Amino acid sequence: MDLEALFKPESIAVVGASRTPGKIGYEIVRNLKEYGYSGRVYPVNPQAREILGLKSYPSISAIPDKIDMVVVSVPAAMVPDVVEEAGRKGAKVAVVISSGFKEVGRQDLEDEVVERARKYGMRVLGPNIFGVVYSPARINASFGPKDVIPGHVAFVTQSGALGIALMGMTIVERIGVSAIVSIGNKSDIDDADLLEYLVNDDATKVILIYLEGVKDGKRFIEVARRVSAIKPIIVIKAGRTEVGAKAVASHTGSLAGNVVIYSSVFKQTGILEARNIEEAFDWARALSYLPEYKNGDLVVVTNGGGAGVMVTDTLALNGVYLSSPPEKLVKEIKPKLPGFASLGNPIDVTGMITNEGYVDTVISSLLNDDVGAVLAVYCQTAVTDPTIIAGLIIRKIKEMGGLSKPLVASMIGGEEVYWAIQKLNDAGIPAYPTPERAASSIASLINYSKIRKRLTGNA
Amino acid sequence: MDLEALFKPESIAVVGASRTPGKIGYEIVRNLKEYGYSGRVYPVNPQAREILGLKSYPSISAIPDKIDMVVVSVPAAMVPDVVEEAGRKGAKVAVVISSGFKEVGRQDLEDEVVERARKYGMRVLGPNIFGVVYSPARINASFGPKDVIPGHVAFVTQSGALGIALMGMTIVERIGVSAIVSIGNKSDIDDADLLEYLVNDDATKVILIYLEGVKDGKRFIEVARRVSAIKPIIVIKAGRTEVGAKAVASHTGSLAGNVVIYSSVFKQTGILEARNIEEAFDWARALSYLPEYKNGDLVVVTNGGGAGVMVTDTLALNGVYLSSPPEKLVKEIKPKLPGFASLGNPIDVTGMITNEGYVDTVISSLLNDDVGAVLAVYCQTAVTDPTIIAGLIIRKIKEMGGLSKPLVASMIGGEEVYWAIQKLNDAGIPAYPTPERAASSIASLINYSKIRKRLTGNA
Repeated sequence: MDLEALFKPESIAVVGASRTPGKIGYEIVRNLKEYGYSGRVYPVNPQAREILGLKSYPSISAIPDKIDMVVVSVPAAMVPDVVEEAGRKGAKVAVVISSGFKEVGRQDLEDEVVERARKYGMRVLGPNIFGVVYSPARINASFGPKDVIPGHVAFVTQSGALGIALMGMTIVERIGVSAIVSIGNKSDIDDADLLEYLVNDDATKVILIYLEGVKDGKRFIEVARRVSAIKPIIVIKAGRTEVGAKAVASHTGSLAGNVVIYSSVFKQTGILEARNIEEAFDWARALSYLPEYKNGDLVVVTNGGGAGVMVTDTLALNGVYLSSPPEKLVKEIKPKLPGFASLGNPIDVTGMITNEGYVDTVISSLLNDDVGAVLAVYCQTAVTDPTIIAGLIIRKIKEMGGLSKPLVASMIGGEEVYWAIQKLNDAGIPAYPTPERAASSIASLINYSKIRKRLTGNA
Repeated sequence: MDLEALFKPESIAVVGASRTPGKIGYEIVRNLKEYGYSGRVYPVNPQAREILGLKSYPSISAIPDKIDMVVVSVPAAMVPDVVEEAGRKGAKVAVVISSGFKEVGRQDLEDEVVERARKYGMRVLGPNIFGVVYSPARINASFGPKDVIPGHVAFVTQSGALGIALMGMTIVERIGVSAIVSIGNKSDIDDADLLEYLVNDDATKVILIYLEGVKDGKRFIEVARRVSAIKPIIVIKAGRTEVGAKAVASHTGSLAGNVVIYSSVFKQTGILEARNIEEAFDWARALSYLPEYKNGDLVVVTNGGGAGVMVTDTLALNGVYLSSPPEKLVKEIKPKLPGFASLGNPIDVTGMITNEGYVDTVISSLLNDDVGAVLAVYCQTAVTDPTIIAGLIIRKIKEMGGLSKPLVASMIGGEEVYWAIQKLNDAGIPAYPTPERAASSIASLINYSKIRKRLTGNA
């Protein structure tokens, strides 16, 4: 059964809805209402007549409407009965927020929930989760932050507290999401199910998974390989070391499995394995903002030789090597650059370059037919202004009708640089405060392009 | 000859001072004046009578005072004569900002500068640099940003444009510096000289070097080993890969040398080699803010199991392994924690913990005699407030009379978390937005402690 009802329900009942701010059952109703969901929301609470201006019902069966999704936030012991009632009502998916199941040794209770749901052909998300978000339908059925930014990253997380915190981080970091799915104990719906759905979701360009362990390895591998040929999957794997894997076991009771096996599975299936949370989100930003890398040279433009070296190192560590810039490009830009500019790759336009000189070199590189991607590395100097540079880049790209190949920026410096980075990110040009983070991000696009060619046989 | 005059000059002449904002010779005089240097500053410019309210002189010899430091920002061809004049005047150090020397093939001109300086026993910093900063004397003889934050990191950089940009970054990132030294072509003063001076500088707790290559390897090794036994040295090495090393060569003409040799030299001499700029500054923050790690357990407190796993992984990858928390600590905190809290290491206080419960656990850990260091990992949840948590931690530590052992924090979440991080950093508690960055930073303290014991024979 597919997961349409999880992402595009026409009506949602919230069982355990509350009138008390701060309570989970209150936050979920509030997020559903205030994030702008246009479907019908039915709070269920036998003690309330109205919650946040919405008529409240004593039970699911009392709702005079069909129900697609039921969000359940009641004590664990009550969950099986609520699920049964939801099934009878014809609900297609139960989002079980409640904890107190497998993670505290109550596998039996968890099994019962799934069994009851199956009787009615209903799917179960969770239990032990913070909810689900799908921005195209303006659904925020979670007790996380309300105003997640709509975009193209689908974030699937096995961790609750960390996941909800990272949900907040996407807002500050201006990373737009299509979906956020907390999968918790994975009693029924698991990573593979979500991959199968999200691969066909138009709003999703990148799938980012925080993974502790996989139950059905064979199916995960099969699905991940199929999806990787179409959309990039980034995984941040908790328990990447032997001791980390043990920590996972004691945290979730689930096996994180053999460290080496996971890494080789990721490689095999074309999954991009990030080394840490920051890198995972850096990659997700670049892969979701930018057009696909197809072929042609990666050209690096920098006004700081040292930053150029850092980039060369990071690219190499990520398996990407620079070749000399296209001759035509060199011929074109040379007359406009300071005499001691270095016309290799990186192209070092030197610290004496002006705002216009820097931006012209970046744009000329983008417009060159032999160039496949551009990495613009900028060090704040006394003769340039980061805000002007960001503004010029944004304007010129608008005049070009948008980006037709990837451009990633790194801006290094003080306060003004941080505003310029935000400006670029808001305009859809991924920008980072260190050269290494930018280099690793553009490398993720190039590496994904190789993976995709390998998996689809178009080498 | 020592470098006292580079850091504590009583008088400074700026040759090539300018009245035009934006010009290097203007920015340097302005920074000297506005950063609050209390010594005498003498602009030298034959065309000006006054610059920024300071009387200007037509030449160094015309200054009616003894001169300790001469900052030189005139065209390269004129530099030897200026240096000669400075030597005759009795100046002890020439800070040669000008470029146009070895980096453009004019080794001859560079040699002449050094030769002329040597005649008078004068030292030369540069050429091809952005200047020097020493915050205890409120000296900012650079054309970088003015308001660097006084603190305990001495930052030595071989790169100009990148160095000046990173100088700006220290301000935004709230990293206090004792000194910033741009060493450029290292015609005379090099890394080893600066290490020898800075090891005795009371304001400096950590030395951070951006290094492309070393000329006198033998001396560098000897000095670095001696200094590492007293203060931590962090190096960020440009050209860590074969291709990166080639990029260094084409950028500076200097050899970055064999990649493997550098890494093994760093290990041997006790240098902490950071993998990227972000990590280098993260470590510098922790090592400069915190008291030394001596011995005892590292205890990790987290309200998110997943974040605890990320930390366990990162610590292991940095050679730090967690052992069970002290029994006395477990006994003390257990009654106050939720029933399903996990009392291993990390101590997982769960996402249900309150502000007070979280902070109490962190403080109890700090106060336990068997605990040597604490890593507090916080995920933003609906039931806690990051600002309150940061405020409580700061207050309790103040009540304790400050930190007597290292505490590093990671706070993960939205906007409020970023303010809380800033608040902690401003209060001298290093705080980071991801668990991995915090874990790597506390590991740098523990690893440095091992290094120091090894080098001093106190194992």
